[in-house]
Amino acid sequence: MIKHIPQSEFKTPSVTTGPLPASRKVYVDGTRFEDLRVPVREIELHPSALEPPVPVYDSSGPYTDPDVGIDVERGLPRLRADWIVERGGVESYGGREIRPEDNGGASGKYLARAFTATHDPLRGVADAPVTQLEYARAGIITREMEFVAIRENLGRKAMLQNADETVAAGESFGAEIPPFITPEFVRDEIARGRAIIPSNINHPELEPMIIGRNFLVKINANIGNSAVASSVEEEVEKMVWATRWGADTVMDLSTGRNIHNTREWIIRNAPVPIGTVPIYQALEKVDGVAEDLTWEVYRDTLVEQCEQGVDYFTIHAGVRLAYIHLTAERVTGIVSRGGSIMAKWCLAHHRESFLYEHFAEICDLARRYDVSFSLGDGLRPGSIADANDKAQFAELETLGELTRIAWDRGCQVMIEGPGHVPMHKIKVNMDKQLATCGEAPFYTLGPLTTDIAPGYDHITSGVGAAMIGWFGCAMLCYVTPKEHLGLPDRDDVKTGVITYKIAAHAADLAKGHPAAQVRDDALSRARFEFRWEDQFNLALDPETARDFHDQTLPKEAHKVAHFCSMCGPKFCSMKITQDVRDYAESLTDNEKKDLERIAEEGMLAMSRNYREMGSELYLEADAVKRANTDLVPEKSGS
Amino acid sequence: MIKHIPQSEFKTPSVTTGPLPASRKVYVDGTRFEDLRVPVREIELHPSALEPPVPVYDSSGPYTDPDVGIDVERGLPRLRADWIVERGGVESYGGREIRPEDNGGASGKYLARAFTATHDPLRGVADAPVTQLEYARAGIITREMEFVAIRENLGRKAMLQNADETVAAGESFGAEIPPFITPEFVRDEIARGRAIIPSNINHPELEPMIIGRNFLVKINANIGNSAVASSVEEEVEKMVWATRWGADTVMDLSTGRNIHNTREWIIRNAPVPIGTVPIYQALEKVDGVAEDLTWEVYRDTLVEQCEQGVDYFTIHAGVRLAYIHLTAERVTGIVSRGGSIMAKWCLAHHRESFLYEHFAEICDLARRYDVSFSLGDGLRPGSIADANDKAQFAELETLGELTRIAWDRGCQVMIEGPGHVPMHKIKVNMDKQLATCGEAPFYTLGPLTTDIAPGYDHITSGVGAAMIGWFGCAMLCYVTPKEHLGLPDRDDVKTGVITYKIAAHAADLAKGHPAAQVRDDALSRARFEFRWEDQFNLALDPETARDFHDQTLPKEAHKVAHFCSMCGPKFCSMKITQDVRDYAESLTDNEKKDLERIAEEGMLAMSRNYREMGSELYLEADAVKRANTDLVPEKSGS
Repeated sequence: MIKHIPQSEFKTPSVTTGPLPASRKVYVDGTRFEDLRVPVREIELHPSALEPPVPVYDSSGPYTDPDVGIDVERGLPRLRADWIVERGGVESYGGREIRPEDNGGASGKYLARAFTATHDPLRGVADAPVTQLEYARAGIITREMEFVAIRENLGRKAMLQNADETVAAGESFGAEIPPFITPEFVRDEIARGRAIIPSNINHPELEPMIIGRNFLVKINANIGNSAVASSVEEEVEKMVWATRWGADTVMDLSTGRNIHNTREWIIRNAPVPIGTVPIYQALEKVDGVAEDLTWEVYRDTLVEQCEQGVDYFTIHAGVRLAYIHLTAERVTGIVSRGGSIMAKWCLAHHRESFLYEHFAEICDLARRYDVSFSLGDGLRPGSIADANDKAQFAELETLGELTRIAWDRGCQVMIEGPGHVPMHKIKVNMDKQLATCGEAPFYTLGPLTTDIAPGYDHITSGVGAAMIGWFGCAMLCYVTPKEHLGLPDRDDVKTGVITYKIAAHAADLAKGHPAAQVRDDALSRARFEFRWEDQFNLALDPETARDFHDQTLPKEAHKVAHFCSMCGPKFCSMKITQDVRDYAESLTDNEKKDLERIAEEGMLAMSRNYREMGSELYLEADAVKRANTDLVPEKSGS
Repeated sequence: MIKHIPQSEFKTPSVTTGPLPASRKVYVDGTRFEDLRVPVREIELHPSALEPPVPVYDSSGPYTDPDVGIDVERGLPRLRADWIVERGGVESYGGREIRPEDNGGASGKYLARAFTATHDPLRGVADAPVTQLEYARAGIITREMEFVAIRENLGRKAMLQNADETVAAGESFGAEIPPFITPEFVRDEIARGRAIIPSNINHPELEPMIIGRNFLVKINANIGNSAVASSVEEEVEKMVWATRWGADTVMDLSTGRNIHNTREWIIRNAPVPIGTVPIYQALEKVDGVAEDLTWEVYRDTLVEQCEQGVDYFTIHAGVRLAYIHLTAERVTGIVSRGGSIMAKWCLAHHRESFLYEHFAEICDLARRYDVSFSLGDGLRPGSIADANDKAQFAELETLGELTRIAWDRGCQVMIEGPGHVPMHKIKVNMDKQLATCGEAPFYTLGPLTTDIAPGYDHITSGVGAAMIGWFGCAMLCYVTPKEHLGLPDRDDVKTGVITYKIAAHAADLAKGHPAAQVRDDALSRARFEFRWEDQFNLALDPETARDFHDQTLPKEAHKVAHFCSMCGPKFCSMKITQDVRDYAESLTDNEKKDLERIAEEGMLAMSRNYREMGSELYLEADAVKRANTDLVPEKSGS
């Protein structure tokens, strides 16, 4: 029943390049480290706006810089290679040999071509610091830390330039977002375990980014081959495509054949951190039979992926034997793939999870490459009915325990969260996670706030994602419209990413991120002033905005028209507002006071009027029929 | 520049009919009134489910009942005609004559054909009760009240049938949702002004529905001609189409020509309440010049629409002269069309709004037809920057004042709300509205939680809508993907409706509506048991769910496959869960206790282990570099 994809026709993946409309890539230099160049996307406005370009956070990497030649066969420039070697404590070595089982035994025309350029992997030596956490604890600010500090400050700079802007204060639920991010603040947050910079020393191509609740809310896009569909080329383009629209990290969830080669193509071309779930590949190595998994096969897979440059691992070490029976009464049991694999293994051998038992060794291995952990929620609820149950929260306790083990061994950690959760049960997830896991960053899938809309689960989950982002969730794992139904294609990836950018941005606004509103305000001014082109260009998805406008008013002339299709030319509310401004400007202070008085008197007069009318009406009306009248509820205000 | 649509080619509007997949229309009889037949959609499940059909709320009217012949030329059956006449207090009369200006002066080939069948209008006589509010206060339960009581109870009945279901308690923020809705409860809520049944006595075709925060959250879809596009036929189909997917009410926001004739076709064929903004048509009667509006023209328009059967009027009587200058400093000024028209009028004449001054007369007119009010928020914020400002809340105070006037004169009232509001400022909108307007139902547009995603404003606003619905908003006005950009087409209407059904349903779940979770649970069981067909059929949009599934696994055989495209056949987490169930069933109570002990000891053992490892590591590591170590944050929990 499985359709294997012949890979013999393999061509160099064709990826989307070039800037977004009206956008220009600029680079901000470091101050501590002069060789830092932090990418920023600047959106140019129409000259009539009399406004500087709007700078926005740019996750798209060199693909949107026309000055950088892209060669997918060679991979991206190895930006961090010198940084890593220069600070020492690492050694280059031959690395593990690639074996047929790494690609699920694919051969002949079914084997995907290996990535062209190869590099000897690096690993940490002895007890010298390797991870960003170890450097942070040692009081050392790395280039990665300064890089993310600059990156996080972009909008704030624009805000400070327009100091007359009023930016609304949000409600941060205990997050402490400073007005300006310093490299020292970044170091301190990492040292405290409240933020991570996922950055395997073998993935020097990535542009560093930070995940933590005192920073911008981030989003992850999942991609990956499956046993039943898609090819290497498609997945590389999906990765580039996802980051183009704003994915801050990408998880390669490939299963089936060619996992190793697919991942190599992805990582070598990825400007963002790449996460994986290593148990998926380990399972392929034992031919899909969960019972046959061993610590040795799993460990071997970790080494393979550490050397390739995977930046974070989802490890389902919280699925303990003793918790498994707690899921038996659930409506949807165990829905996490990793969780169910481990549950099956535990049951088959009737023993404790080897991931749990070997977790300290996993840490020691990951530390040498600075692979971060994303502690998996293998027992997350798969339906509204199962949200916040005993199994879910028992696992969370164990994730807290594992967090401390990982921290103790120098590893960066974030915690995965659900899943399917109705709105009123979302906040307790966030609060419990912070308390149980020592404020390690939370990274949730949605959550979906209802189960009844397959085909629209980007929306059911976007609601939950925006809310939990506001409450303090550091990264939101996207859900595409195909969730529960099929594999996302390019369009689905884009829809998922844009939906989650909305959720993350809405959360930044609500948290009172000092500069989040800069883009909203720029777009709103463009809207008010009928600068249609600026409105499109400032949109998260300029192409769709323009396309939707053109469906109703396609002519170029309408792009400068001072009306829109909703109201037509005579009816324009925004035009009328200009009259209001002229009027307001003509008012003297005394006239304004008069208006206030009139407003208040009007209220009083109407109120008196109302009381008189009220009594009158009451008397006139049929007294019998009105006997039960409860005319004005008691709670009514003024 | 305006494109007038020739109407001479006018054909009978072609509307979408027939049941949704696996669905059957059944009718529940009344108990108090034997002639009541309340429609329910029952979704049939696969025999292997061993479950009864799932009943769901059905707003689609006779169009989805194959036993009812649809004749758009004649309109829907006049369901309530006898009810209204039977209870007395109304008279039939000739009605106002239709004039050319009612259709914006359209003539010749530009005049849309008038609706075929005509009916003399009814109006209330003297002081006899006419409105549902007056009947409720008089202690009288109308047929409309019993109808909505039955309608609201549907899911609850299913829940009581499956009494072993655990339904999660929500957080209702002061709403008081009883386990079972009685006609008396409906009457009481209406008498208290906390709920309305919009139901003009001249729109007997509608199936009564209720809007109030102790009932299911409702959604409204906007349709309507514009000066620049669309035709009567399209708008009638949009109305039918919107209710097919779940719109509980429809607002006809037509502008330009043919407003009267378009509206007649819509109302005569509408199974749901129809709302309008009468100032739009009044403005057309004075050729689009706001300054030329008069109370007489406006009043004449109200009479025209009362007689046609409009069920609720948006009246922007809160835009008072004294508030207008408060909007001058806004980023986006006044964005409500109605609000800006009234602002322009007030400024041009430098006098108080004629809507405000004549509000008592407006009430006396509307009362005679039982037209409900939707008091318009003409000063709502049009951007994140303007949310919750002085102008917005000043108007809300006036809406509270007007609510009491309307109540005093026997009219049903709801209050319109914003607009654009970041997440952290949403709840205060709800709380202020309840306090200021005596708990009259709130009816909000979104709110949009960010401005940066034109093309996706169904999503930016769906987030805010779900949240405010949870907080107590009674009806959510949909926003389509075309918001701010163009006129919604059929696909946009559907996307907007489905998105808002998601928001309303997520809110019902979070409020702890006693039966909301029935459908989620049925769908989750179907998902868990690989009943693909049931999963599609139970979805809010079965067509899209099926289509998305088929894009990856098109074969019919896959519809019964016990795996999905995401994981493939070997990897199925749901399959593994069955093993867990078998295992859990095999466990004795003693074995379960052992597991609990193992879980706890494991935690302790790992904890000891961790402390030992921790110390060891700490000693081994480079003491100088680790001097700044902040190993475990102080806040960390157990």
